[in-house]
Amino acid sequence: MGTVKAGITTSVDGYVAGPDDGPGRGLGEGGERLHHWVFGGPWTYDSMPEGNTRADDDGWMARGMADLGAVVAGRATYEASGHWDDTNPWGVPFFIVTHRPQEQPEGDAFRFVSGVVDAVEAAKEAAGDKDVHVMGGADVIRQALAAGLVDELSIILAPVVLGGGKRLFEGFDQDLELEHLGVTQTRLATFVDYRVVRS
Amino acid sequence: MGTVKAGITTSVDGYVAGPDDGPGRGLGEGGERLHHWVFGGPWTYDSMPEGNTRADDDGWMARGMADLGAVVAGRATYEASGHWDDTNPWGVPFFIVTHRPQEQPEGDAFRFVSGVVDAVEAAKEAAGDKDVHVMGGADVIRQALAAGLVDELSIILAPVVLGGGKRLFEGFDQDLELEHLGVTQTRLATFVDYRVVRS
Repeated sequence: MGTVKAGITTSVDGYVAGPDDGPGRGLGEGGERLHHWVFGGPWTYDSMPEGNTRADDDGWMARGMADLGAVVAGRATYEASGHWDDTNPWGVPFFIVTHRPQEQPEGDAFRFVSGVVDAVEAAKEAAGDKDVHVMGGADVIRQALAAGLVDELSIILAPVVLGGGKRLFEGFDQDLELEHLGVTQTRLATFVDYRVVRS
Repeated sequence: MGTVKAGITTSVDGYVAGPDDGPGRGLGEGGERLHHWVFGGPWTYDSMPEGNTRADDDGWMARGMADLGAVVAGRATYEASGHWDDTNPWGVPFFIVTHRPQEQPEGDAFRFVSGVVDAVEAAKEAAGDKDVHVMGGADVIRQALAAGLVDELSIILAPVVLGGGKRLFEGFDQDLELEHLGVTQTRLATFVDYRVVRS
């Protein structure tokens, strides 16, 4: 079996999005700075980001892509991205957690599944010996952690304090032991990788 | 002038203490794991920790001590520590932020000051060319950040998700740009150092 890896970018104060995020508003007020590392520097919501990941920032993602077998995301993430222009951006089976699986578009670019547990199970089956990446949003990662489905958790810390928004761990009340798998830092982000210890 | 450095240990979910912290209860339920790096591994509230900081964990503190000129802490931190057995543990002027400065004990081991701004100013004056360390609690660090008094912020991430407690950034609603100064990781903690960018 592969490894189930959850990874998401947060501010230093723990937000995965600034205030007022959502469809057409991306990562919310000031939240675009969370993803400077993704696009090689500043970008805005007014136009599609044109930059590419810088070579040093790309290391974390490249390591994750090497053994990637399937991806899980929440419906809100899917909507906020504009359905990735209706094209699966990962090149591997991509499962979307939703309360309305009947709304899956034609084809299998996106596979709508009801519930995080079922989505991760389906992703593991599709991935075979390869890894599953749980990309978020925060609620999907919280549910996957709470259900004991996550083997490795990566927190990508952007060097900003947002002062408000959506907290990654909002309402999460479980106690989890972690072990370090390593850390790397570029100009635009600090990538901290943990193994989740099974009790 | 020296540098004003705020530094504190948090869990991966952003707590500086677990549930029910306070005098006699240390860092709260499960919160002692935040400070495994301080004592070289597990310890309990039942007895004074006997371990010493491991050599690798000691690096961050040793770098900070090299140019240390004064320290600022909040009254709750002072009380939670048991007044450090009435002995200043730092060997440099130590300012305690309190609403009741008249309660300062005899001598100058601890200098009680009303308000974070006045305490940091007094500490800077006492430190001269050396650095001021704002050690916490969370409310003192938040107030110092909000008042623009902090030059460098260090977050020491313990590899644990506490699921509750006191959040470092609770109620903090300012937006701060940070720049990386470096990161180190030991078995027990990840030390992330930031410069606070003046707008």
